[in-house]
Amino acid sequence: MKFARFSIGLEQYNGILTDGRLKVIEGNIFEDWKYTREEFPADEAQFLAPLEPNQIIGIGANYVSKLEELPTELPEIPVFFFKPTSSVIGPNEKIIIPEGIEQVKFESELAIVMGKEAKHVSEEDVFDYVFGYTVGNDVTAPQFFHKDGHWMVGKSFDTFTPLGPVIETDLDPFTVTVEAKLNGEQKQYSGTDLMIIPIRKMISYLSKVMTLKPGDVILSGSPIGAEFVGIGAVIECTIKEIGTLRNSFASVSVKA
Amino acid sequence: MKFARFSIGLEQYNGILTDGRLKVIEGNIFEDWKYTREEFPADEAQFLAPLEPNQIIGIGANYVSKLEELPTELPEIPVFFFKPTSSVIGPNEKIIIPEGIEQVKFESELAIVMGKEAKHVSEEDVFDYVFGYTVGNDVTAPQFFHKDGHWMVGKSFDTFTPLGPVIETDLDPFTVTVEAKLNGEQKQYSGTDLMIIPIRKMISYLSKVMTLKPGDVILSGSPIGAEFVGIGAVIECTIKEIGTLRNSFASVSVKA
Repeated sequence: MKFARFSIGLEQYNGILTDGRLKVIEGNIFEDWKYTREEFPADEAQFLAPLEPNQIIGIGANYVSKLEELPTELPEIPVFFFKPTSSVIGPNEKIIIPEGIEQVKFESELAIVMGKEAKHVSEEDVFDYVFGYTVGNDVTAPQFFHKDGHWMVGKSFDTFTPLGPVIETDLDPFTVTVEAKLNGEQKQYSGTDLMIIPIRKMISYLSKVMTLKPGDVILSGSPIGAEFVGIGAVIECTIKEIGTLRNSFASVSVKA
Repeated sequence: MKFARFSIGLEQYNGILTDGRLKVIEGNIFEDWKYTREEFPADEAQFLAPLEPNQIIGIGANYVSKLEELPTELPEIPVFFFKPTSSVIGPNEKIIIPEGIEQVKFESELAIVMGKEAKHVSEEDVFDYVFGYTVGNDVTAPQFFHKDGHWMVGKSFDTFTPLGPVIETDLDPFTVTVEAKLNGEQKQYSGTDLMIIPIRKMISYLSKVMTLKPGDVILSGSPIGAEFVGIGAVIECTIKEIGTLRNSFASVSVKA
């Protein structure tokens, strides 16, 4: 099932995408929701980020380029980081390159959406707490990384976390391919089997540190192939079973 | 004015603390609130964290030990980091030392509570966007810092961000002293004039990266003197004009 947030004119809706139509729902998607009688053709809707995340957690440097490169021993402490919820935008919104720099990096990722409070969850049980999956673009300005390794500023600019187009709840995250096309040219294309810290371990580890909450989004890392891009570039992040998250890059002075 | 959240028995309230009494209010403290007719003696109340933060931002290594040590040139990129909202606890709740380690660090801090959406705010104007101030304890387990400088795991455990006892809206942040007493013995005692990145610059800088929102909490750094402590220790973080935030340390197996 594909959950969407979208607008038609000035009105915002939550809905389920089926066969090119958006059936409007009401309620909290993590708790209790129901269909209304309204529906719209999907091609008349502007898709928004499919949720307003509670928090956003990322994991760094989590892909190898081929299976043979997977380490036999996992790092003891994964490179986790937070991104602010204020950085979220939806499909087709502009990613704004901060003042003072010319380029930023795109990073196409499988984004995991938590659906239930999760604390001390075993690797076997993590999927009981996952609501679904969307596509994320973990836009990054490494020029603003602190020399001692703190990524906060370089990951936190407004517009730096495009999410969408929908949350797919029926997805086997182990069989999907994470893609990115830059101006139509393929730059990233990796199966999630190339993750260094796999999804079960990632969520279980996090749940032993902090209580994960419904609406927490975990950006599960970006495949090899991310690049610096400048104003005017168009990035399409795709996981076929979910959809394509398309955004272009602009500077501060260009109205989004 | 001192804004509090508190419980009496099983009921939770928002209130204003005046002369030892808690006058119950209703509404959103950042938007529109009013007094109800209820009030309670403050000593019958269990104070909670005075807000449920929207996000928590910290700044690292932000104090010198004396004025002469203040650098003439400020770092270009401050060491900012996020803490998860799931790490918040209130006064008198137990700080839980994570499994596998014996000690964690306390860090007494002036916590700034944002009241309005702030984007690209100049240093002169930052206080138009501040709602008030509380005391924060930025509990930290450096044993879980990543060797490449990522602090996320070591800062994010549940119970690692005690806040309270109240939000004081009438405070001159430049004249207060940030204190910590460990088992009654003074360990931290510094004026906020010992901050390396001062408050105006801190908030203005952040607002140029991300849109700050009402309920965002900025932990403005901890004075020299933080220490490792173990089970049973009692930490009292004090800013006289706000109050004392008292917590003790326990292990996972001890019920909070």
